[in-house]
Amino acid sequence: MESLKRKIIEEGRVLSENVLKVDAFLNHQIDPFLMREIGKEFAGRFAAEGITKILTLESSGIAPSVMAGLELNVPVIFARKRKSLTMTDGLLTASVYSFTKQETSEVSIASKYVSPDDTILIIDDFLANGQAAQALLKLADDAGAKVSGIGIVIEKSFQHGRKLLEAKGVRVESLARIQSLKDGKVTFVQEAVEGIAR
Amino acid sequence: MESLKRKIIEEGRVLSENVLKVDAFLNHQIDPFLMREIGKEFAGRFAAEGITKILTLESSGIAPSVMAGLELNVPVIFARKRKSLTMTDGLLTASVYSFTKQETSEVSIASKYVSPDDTILIIDDFLANGQAAQALLKLADDAGAKVSGIGIVIEKSFQHGRKLLEAKGVRVESLARIQSLKDGKVTFVQEAVEGIAR
Repeated sequence: MESLKRKIIEEGRVLSENVLKVDAFLNHQIDPFLMREIGKEFAGRFAAEGITKILTLESSGIAPSVMAGLELNVPVIFARKRKSLTMTDGLLTASVYSFTKQETSEVSIASKYVSPDDTILIIDDFLANGQAAQALLKLADDAGAKVSGIGIVIEKSFQHGRKLLEAKGVRVESLARIQSLKDGKVTFVQEAVEGIAR
Repeated sequence: MESLKRKIIEEGRVLSENVLKVDAFLNHQIDPFLMREIGKEFAGRFAAEGITKILTLESSGIAPSVMAGLELNVPVIFARKRKSLTMTDGLLTASVYSFTKQETSEVSIASKYVSPDDTILIIDDFLANGQAAQALLKLADDAGAKVSGIGIVIEKSFQHGRKLLEAKGVRVESLARIQSLKDGKVTFVQEAVEGIAR
């Protein structure tokens, strides 16, 4: 998705070989027009899947998900993060380990909002080690719902998240795939078919 | 806003005289179409104000804000909540006391995303005691920005948030104003001019 890649180049900041900061347009300040484009792109890629609900994680997954929900004409549910959960009545929960923060947190959704009749599209802002995506997968699985795929805004392809998810047979669609953040520079994965197959 | 009020009646749950749960369409599961309508309504009410940026609070303020940002053609910035902040470099922070949780948390934004040239519209999902709105006001004030008003999705008019904010000279626009949650029933504030003046 060229407009997203351009935005990453222009407004993203490479803080280290592992860290790309995109708080200028995605996860602190939000560009609503880019979000709408992102929503449309996800909707197009999963148009044939009969999606009935989008599942995401607060907070940075919400904006792209709501735009995709608008396009696909389905509701969005965002999992909430908590350090630990005391009351879990009516909740489905999963653990997420953050390598950056070196801590485990819980994410949860109210079980009544996802049913075995649902076909879920999971959306998140970043894919790195796949911890958050796996937790969202577990929530959908625990609800008995079918997961049609995972839509990611920015994938750090030099980390192993995609591999983990694909090993589970899940389709992963990332709108920008970053091969490297070396030398303070963003290098995208070369995708030969882009613009033809899509 | 009639469609919002209808949704509150149909899908909101009155848990007590103080608590209205709207996690079916606003703060857990999200109805993207209702959010778009809400965004348009906010944009219309503040169309003449020369808004340059929307300021909201994660997580439930994000969806209506992004839709309003799309209509007003301005970026959105969402303040982050933290139990306590250790690193505050480049951050503006304010405290929010939650009467429900009986705890104080910090909300913050990166100072570089709000400037004295900005005219801010603050948006939040609920107005009750006005604690969150006041914290957002403080963040905008500390940045030296002008605040044109506060857009609220659901106002609990039997609590004193509106009074506090209006005493500061701030314009408050709420899309649904609830007079009472007594007897398990939602009663809206009667607004004689609605549909005429607006």
